[in-house]
Amino acid sequence: MDKLIEKIIEKQNPTVAGLDPKLEYVPGFIKAECFTKYGRTLEGAAAALFEFNKALIDVLYDIVPAVKPQAAYYEMYGWQGVKALAYTINYAKSKGMYVMTDGKRGDIGATMEAYTAAHIGTTDVDGETCVAFGADALTVNGYLGTDCIKPLLSVCKDKDKDIFVLAKTSNPSSGELQDKKIGDKTVYETMGEMCEGWGADTIGKHGYSAVGAVVGATYPQMLGELREKLPHTFFLVPGYGAQGGGAEDAKYAFDKNGLGAIVNSSRGIMCAWKKQDGKTEADFAEAARAEALRMREDLLGVIGEIR
Amino acid sequence: MDKLIEKIIEKQNPTVAGLDPKLEYVPGFIKAECFTKYGRTLEGAAAALFEFNKALIDVLYDIVPAVKPQAAYYEMYGWQGVKALAYTINYAKSKGMYVMTDGKRGDIGATMEAYTAAHIGTTDVDGETCVAFGADALTVNGYLGTDCIKPLLSVCKDKDKDIFVLAKTSNPSSGELQDKKIGDKTVYETMGEMCEGWGADTIGKHGYSAVGAVVGATYPQMLGELREKLPHTFFLVPGYGAQGGGAEDAKYAFDKNGLGAIVNSSRGIMCAWKKQDGKTEADFAEAARAEALRMREDLLGVIGEIR
Repeated sequence: MDKLIEKIIEKQNPTVAGLDPKLEYVPGFIKAECFTKYGRTLEGAAAALFEFNKALIDVLYDIVPAVKPQAAYYEMYGWQGVKALAYTINYAKSKGMYVMTDGKRGDIGATMEAYTAAHIGTTDVDGETCVAFGADALTVNGYLGTDCIKPLLSVCKDKDKDIFVLAKTSNPSSGELQDKKIGDKTVYETMGEMCEGWGADTIGKHGYSAVGAVVGATYPQMLGELREKLPHTFFLVPGYGAQGGGAEDAKYAFDKNGLGAIVNSSRGIMCAWKKQDGKTEADFAEAARAEALRMREDLLGVIGEIR
Repeated sequence: MDKLIEKIIEKQNPTVAGLDPKLEYVPGFIKAECFTKYGRTLEGAAAALFEFNKALIDVLYDIVPAVKPQAAYYEMYGWQGVKALAYTINYAKSKGMYVMTDGKRGDIGATMEAYTAAHIGTTDVDGETCVAFGADALTVNGYLGTDCIKPLLSVCKDKDKDIFVLAKTSNPSSGELQDKKIGDKTVYETMGEMCEGWGADTIGKHGYSAVGAVVGATYPQMLGELREKLPHTFFLVPGYGAQGGGAEDAKYAFDKNGLGAIVNSSRGIMCAWKKQDGKTEADFAEAARAEALRMREDLLGVIGEIR
């Protein structure tokens, strides 16, 4: 996790910009240009997503350490959308950003090797080493147990990559399974402890392993509880902003050095112009930067200097 | 689930051919042709996967009701691989097959809407309705609870599509979480009961809902247990063949009419020539067909006529 942590310290910013570009979030003038070129097609939509993402990355890369493209919003535009995902990852990396692909993948061992190659590893094509998507991290669903985590761990170790395993998700119905008790522990605590175990061999110089956990800002009490119990597990914290969580909720995710977590904002940044006085969609990039700066101040206000 | 069930009855075959085309499974002469054309690149690999899949579909579509491409094996070849997935789904559908995309997706509500559009629904591009991948069914991970299932249900109802939710997976470590007790029930039973609940409004004329469950043939006792407890939940049963399960294990998944389940074989069919005397990779298609016929006999031998 050191690569991410160092970018967070350097930028004094524990936020990740979610790139979940629903077509309706993309300003009309970008869409118009792409539809003129490619028609109202999956190809046209995918081109618009990529243009939108590039413009956002251009105004964020010097102040925000990481981006998190959500795979679903690319897959819904077909393979053309998935091509835009690949291009987005490349572009963000070329600007020095840390890229987490939010795919929540989870499968049996042999299949998980394929997902590992796809998202954070490399793919062998008859002796040639190719990079399929090449992100720095992938979100993972651990429902299948250790088998589904193991293939990821060797790439995490060898290539300085990370994973974030779902523990307590930010959505309203997350408790249906995750809050149920297994003996004296909840399912999300059990999953959290598994993360500590899976990461044990990969602890970096800041004390965090390559196996992080997803814990929603919408459940601040559980965030605090898990922060105590999982000292080596870095948290990816969704739910800030549009989903209802604030800095006062997210603060429980951090340790005394202001480390231990990165907080995601997607719509809050992508659609910032809608909430800023006098802005129109032509100002989306400037407004996104202003919101990212405001969010940084908001978080630093409760956690202090990050060191 | 009626569309699938009718194809199973028509073909008297409760099997689905898994299309998990690792490049190493693809016969050398197919790869050579594609590499000559596109180089040892992701594009070349993706072309080889699609040619392999087409040849398999050509010899299976009149005897096997369904195919199940595993998304991971396409994603590992980048967006080019994902394009081969889209082409494979289209080709299988053009031959009248039922297509299940094995993606094990699961996310919060808004994101799950995007996955729904991507895999079994349609995508609106500024007023134009586009089909991204257009499978008949998607495998789903229910760790996030009802939120992550709801967006799928309306498409299942409106467009006669299905989902299969992970309950008890076929891998060795599946028990780490899934076998743990929540009160007097295991996690996999709890998930199974949620499937019955989610599917309640979508029960078709054969008594099964649009919400199926994934239950591995490698755990026959649990298969039988769940078959009893979940009368309206159709099972997708992995683990036959290469993973160690046989017809004697899989039989517990079926009801008295020989319905209630579809059994997957991936490597067993794709790489059948390796296990048949005197066959070489040039015979892969013929060998795949022979294995599919053998598997049908094997399963019908324990469940009898399907009606």
